[in-house]
Parts: sequence; C-alpha cells; structure tokens
Amino acid sequence: MKQILAEILTIGDEILYGQITDTNAQWISAELDQLGVRVVRKTTVGDQREAILTAFAEAEKRADMVIITGGLGPTNDDLTMPMLAEYFNSEIVLNESVLNHVKNFFERRGRQFTELNKRQALVPKVAQVLHNELGTAPGTWYERNGKVFVSLPGVPHEMKNLVKQLVLPKLSRHFQTPVIYHKLIKTVGIGESFLADIIKDWEANLPEHISLAYLPSVGQVKLRLTAVGENKQQLVEEVGQQVERLLPLAGEFIYGYDETSLEEAVGQLLKTKNKTIALAESCSGGYAQHKLTTVAGSSNYFQGGVVPYHNQFKMQILGVRQETLEAYGAVSEACVKEMAEGVRKLFNADIGAASSGIAGPGGGTDEKPIGTVWIAFADGEKTITKKLQLTQNRLLNIELTEIAILNLVRKSLSQ
Amino acid sequence: MKQILAEILTIGDEILYGQITDTNAQWISAELDQLGVRVVRKTTVGDQREAILTAFAEAEKRADMVIITGGLGPTNDDLTMPMLAEYFNSEIVLNESVLNHVKNFFERRGRQFTELNKRQALVPKVAQVLHNELGTAPGTWYERNGKVFVSLPGVPHEMKNLVKQLVLPKLSRHFQTPVIYHKLIKTVGIGESFLADIIKDWEANLPEHISLAYLPSVGQVKLRLTAVGENKQQLVEEVGQQVERLLPLAGEFIYGYDETSLEEAVGQLLKTKNKTIALAESCSGGYAQHKLTTVAGSSNYFQGGVVPYHNQFKMQILGVRQETLEAYGAVSEACVKEMAEGVRKLFNADIGAASSGIAGPGGGTDEKPIGTVWIAFADGEKTITKKLQLTQNRLLNIELTEIAILNLVRKSLSQ
Repeated sequence: MKQILAEILTIGDEILYGQITDTNAQWISAELDQLGVRVVRKTTVGDQREAILTAFAEAEKRADMVIITGGLGPTNDDLTMPMLAEYFNSEIVLNESVLNHVKNFFERRGRQFTELNKRQALVPKVAQVLHNELGTAPGTWYERNGKVFVSLPGVPHEMKNLVKQLVLPKLSRHFQTPVIYHKLIKTVGIGESFLADIIKDWEANLPEHISLAYLPSVGQVKLRLTAVGENKQQLVEEVGQQVERLLPLAGEFIYGYDETSLEEAVGQLLKTKNKTIALAESCSGGYAQHKLTTVAGSSNYFQGGVVPYHNQFKMQILGVRQETLEAYGAVSEACVKEMAEGVRKLFNADIGAASSGIAGPGGGTDEKPIGTVWIAFADGEKTITKKLQLTQNRLLNIELTEIAILNLVRKSLSQ
Repeated sequence: MKQILAEILTIGDEILYGQITDTNAQWISAELDQLGVRVVRKTTVGDQREAILTAFAEAEKRADMVIITGGLGPTNDDLTMPMLAEYFNSEIVLNESVLNHVKNFFERRGRQFTELNKRQALVPKVAQVLHNELGTAPGTWYERNGKVFVSLPGVPHEMKNLVKQLVLPKLSRHFQTPVIYHKLIKTVGIGESFLADIIKDWEANLPEHISLAYLPSVGQVKLRLTAVGENKQQLVEEVGQQVERLLPLAGEFIYGYDETSLEEAVGQLLKTKNKTIALAESCSGGYAQHKLTTVAGSSNYFQGGVVPYHNQFKMQILGVRQETLEAYGAVSEACVKEMAEGVRKLFNADIGAASSGIAGPGGGTDEKPIGTVWIAFADGEKTITKKLQLTQNRLLNIELTEIAILNLVRKSLSQ
C-alpha cells in the first residue's frame, strides 16, 4: 500500500523569531496521523517571497499533500495568498462569497468594514474556497498532478474548525488513506536504558508492521507502538496482544496509556479503590498537591495537604515528635514516616503521603548531600518509606520528588 | 554589517507525529535573536537517514549556522550522531572524557552502567565535544568552510544549559556578532492593549536604534527593549534612561527585569522587608506555594501553607467559622479573609494569603460561575481582598489565581 506523505508549512516571522510557539503544526500532525497520513517534515519560514516559494517547491517534491498555516492577514506583510497565486500561475480575484461573509462577520460584531478588510476576499482564481465560519481569512485548496495544497488561517480555533469540518473529510476522499494505529504505553520509575534492557527480547520479536519508539521525559519513559495496515480493528487487536506480552516484563512500571497522565492515573486508582488522600510536602513545596488538583474532579479523593517548611510546623501541625527531629533530623526516614501518618490523621484521609529532602542549591552536607529525599506512604496499617538520591538541580528535584510520591502511592495501591 | 543566518533543525518522529510539542526550537530562536542572529528556517524531520542528511545539506546551503536538537538517545532509533559522522565524513570514536562523565553520572546516582549507556560516548572524531553536565548525551560542534553545525540533546533543561554556558559564547566569538543589548521589563496585572495605551507617547519617542516589543504570556506582559550599536556600556546607559522615563507611567505594574520571575520578585520583597509568609490555597491547590518554593533560599521567608480542599478543613485547620461558610459559602470574601488570617496565625507568619474559587469544569452556579475566585492578603493590621472573574479553563484558572495572589502580596508590600 502506498504511504501518503504530508508536509506542514508554517509561515510567519513571529514564529521564526521565537515570539510565539507554533502549536498548530503539532495539532495538525496528530490529526493527519489519525488519518493514516505520514508527516515527513515540518517547516517554518518567515514572511519573505523567496523563502515561501522555495518551501512550496521543496514540499511538493517530497510530499503528496502540503498543509500551510499563517500569513493570511490583510496587511502587507502577509504573503501566503499572493505566493500561492504565483506558485499555481493563477490570478488573484475578488471572491464574492468570501466578501459577503467578511462583511456579515463585521456587521454582526458591530465593527466597521474597511478597505483593508476587503482584501480578505482576494483569493487565487484556481483555488477552491474553504469557508471559515469563525473568522475572516478563508481556507483554500489547490490540486495539481494528484497533489494537494491546503492553506489555512493561523488562528488556532479557526484552523482547527476548518480542518475538522472540511479538510480531513476532503483529504480522506482524495487520497484513499491507509490505516495507522498508535498506542502510547506510559512508564514511571525506570530509566530508558534499563527499560530497553528488560524488554529487548519482546522488542526484537515485534512483527514487521509494528514498530517501537522510546519517548523519555523527566522521570518517565513512554513507549510508542505504531502499527501500519489496512484494517483498524485488526491493528488494535494486534497491538493489544503485544501489550499483553509486555505486561509480565514491565507491567509494574506502566501507569497508563495514551493521553493518561500520572496524576490522572493515581486519581483514577484512588477513585476505583474508594480511598481519599492527604499530602505533607516539605522539599516538594506543594507540587504534588498542585499536580493532583489539576485533575478535574480531584476533590472526590483529595482531602488537602500541608507544606510544613520548618521543623516547628512539622511538629505543631503534623505531630512529628521533637525527639525524632533531634535524633535524625527532618530529612530522615523517621521524620517522613511521622509526617505521612500525621497528615493522614489531620485530614481524616485513608492515605497520607509525605516528602522531606534537600532540594538545593544550599543545605547539603556530607552525610545528606543535595538531592537526598525521603518519601513515605501511610494507610493506617503500614507505612512504606523510600530514599531517593536525586540531582543538583532544585527544580528537577522538586519535579522528581513529585513523580516519586505519586508513583509510591500508585504502587502501594496497586499491590 | 553582514547578517548572520541560522537554521534550527529538530529531529524526532515523536515531534513529527504530533505527540510532543517542540518548545526547544522556539527557545533557541529567541536566544539567537538576542545575539543578533536571524533565524531563516525551522525544520522538523523524523528519525530517518535520508531525511536527516537532506535536511543537513539544505540547511548548510542557506544558513551560516545549523542548530540541531534531538535524536541523541542510546537506542537504535536515535540517528543524529551517526548521520553527523556520515555528513562530515568522519568515523565514530569512543570519547574517553564523555565515557568517564557518563560512568560518573550513573555512579553518583547509584545506578548501574550498562553497555547501552556506553553508546552515549560514541561521537564523530571530527566533532568538538560540548560537555553536558546535566545529562549523558553530549553536545557536539562542527566547523566546515566557516559554517557551524551544533548538535544538542532534546531534553530541554540539558539543551538550555549547554546553549547558555557553551554554545552562545562560542557562536558569538566565531561569527563576531554585533553589539546588541536587550532589557526585559516585566509587568503583571495589566493587559497588553491597556499597557500599550498608557505608554504610547513614551514608545513613540524611543530613539531609532532602540526598539520595543510586547511579549504577552498568561497573566503577564513583558516589554523588551532592544538597542543595537557598537558600545555595550553606552547601550546599557541609554536603555537605563528609557526605563527611568517609563517608571512614572507604568511603574506600578513592573515587578522586575530580565530573568527575574514574579515569585523571585515577591521573595526579594519579603526578604528586603524582613517579612515571613504563609499561604492557604483552596482552588489554586498549592500552586502558589510551589512557585514560591521553586526559588532557592525561599525557606528564609516562606513558613509553609495549607491546601484545605474541603470546608471541614478550612474550619478545623484554619479556624474559618462555620457561620461564615453557612452564610456566604467557601467562595466568598468573608471565607477567604478568615483563611488568610487563619493561616497567618497557624504558621506564626507576618503575612497570610489565601485563595478560594471555582476552578471548573464543574461546580459553577448562576451566582458564582466557573472562574469566580476570591483572594486575600492579611498582615495583622489590615486584610485586603479581591474578586477575580477568570476563564472556563481549569488549568488557566489555577495559574491566573497563583499570579493574582503573588501580585496582591507584591502590591500590598510595595505600598
């Protein structure tokens, strides 16, 4: 089966100079991917004639479709429309239907329609117009020798609406697209190379049409399985079988799939087990509480938490004993254990979890260097503790502690 | 003066397929822009030999420097290093200094060093190694006919550290870039168009060689002054004079300059005024505590905080009165006032601050729709409250609440 190839072209000085992030290209990639189209390149060029024409020609050589965003405003620095006209040897004409739409658009909002706005209705004669309900700059569609160019506005919600409503169905009809299926397998608590090592036989035995990629990020590694074929249902089943084979090898590190985040996975687990949680965070400064509460509906299982940044409050609020602090210090197994147990009681929760450590850059000693962190999980029956030896970087230590706390809760609840 | 041109090349299937957003390219663009280098194109290609080699050749033709990120992991799908070796007709050799670094890196973390990890030390013989302190994949530097290729790891904090510490100074020497001086003026609590309006006369009177850009982000607007000339000291003085003229117009919204974050500015203010602070966060779920504690040395003024996610704990832990909650509800001026006063006492702090609101997506009513948030500041003499009407988006509401709390503390302390 012939693989349909796409290139995504973003036009605009503001993206080239780093003043705004291009999130459109990522979104379009993901949509094309779902359609079974393989994006082979993304390019950003500025608002310059030569750069745009060269990019058109290069993309047309390599890909079957070229999806273009940006450069459609009514001002002189917006060049996409005239460049498309030049590239497709077409004249620019006033499109009456677009003109009426733009006029109505301004009228409905009680804003004045100016000569400048009229320019939005100028499109290459050869183009098919894709009507932009949500804005004034129209999308346009071009065909030549079986290849397709699509030009879309840069404003994200306008672009997305056009893609969903008009572009994807039209592309799907034009190219009879193959089927690609992706599954993300999300792991935590193991580094990329160690994970690669324990799953190497499984990886070596993947069938030809299913490929594997490692996607590491701070404290986590995602595995992506990509299957190419003709039947979606069959690919879903085959990938599912591979995941089944992976579970005995790496299941303990897998917290979820696809869009699920670690905080969502932990929240889901708490909901399923009908447990509530409270947190006491010293070195992680409330970051784990923040992550848990980014999840909508977290008030169903998150009771609350404390950030006791000094020993005095670890004692007064959480009931850590003075003798514990005197004998072992705040960064100790004994202290973090009492913190987890204390916060559990304070918030009348099923589970208490806690962190205490040296985030840096100050505060390290020979015995307890920067990056020394203790975490704990308490559920009233048992208290599990863990010592981490993290990095020299404060922000990274905060993030890694947060991930370790959530992972400790996950593992303890999964047993 | 000759304009130095750059291209940025991102390598990785995960970015092509839209599974992660490439934020590196934007960050690098902005850094190069500060150096006076003009980025002419950004390109993303996948982990395929032909695509990478073609992208190298095309970029070398157009630009003076090519900055590459990604594709440096130890697994088989990472191709950047072998492709660079091929492109520069060089063999791959084991670099002893990188090998020792990688070994130490694993040793210090008490993790096992495997054969796979050893691959990180394989670099093209022709490359100059840029030592990556924060990770295991080294940066590398190549020169040919006056042009420069730089390969960097895709992990953002590793890449950024290498760029700041090694790459920018090296590029500046190699290309003898002109003298450009930037100053960022950071504002909070005012929208872009309102700010533009109150400073329009000042902006119109800027000298030719000093330009102004507006850089808006969530809840904040940065103004960037860029001066181009030949003498750094003179540019610094001239920009300083312009800032002096700006202060009477917009000084109340300015919290800091250049790299200073809002949480650092608030921390500095607390330190200067010799005040301590404690926070009670309901709808912001600990995010303001997290931001404050990302600042090194924050234990000097941050006492701690509470996230009382249910009414019961607002009463039990913070002393909010049952009558208050019954009469006005938790999202009310009266409640947030008692929260701020309560947390101040609990943590024996000079200042207490608090938030209570409806982050969404559930919980909104006609009277208190999603995005309704109350914040408060208490210092024992007075309590200042403020009502915010934010968005429909949970994450945005959490972030905007955090910024509003810190800004309320800043303004109250500045008076």
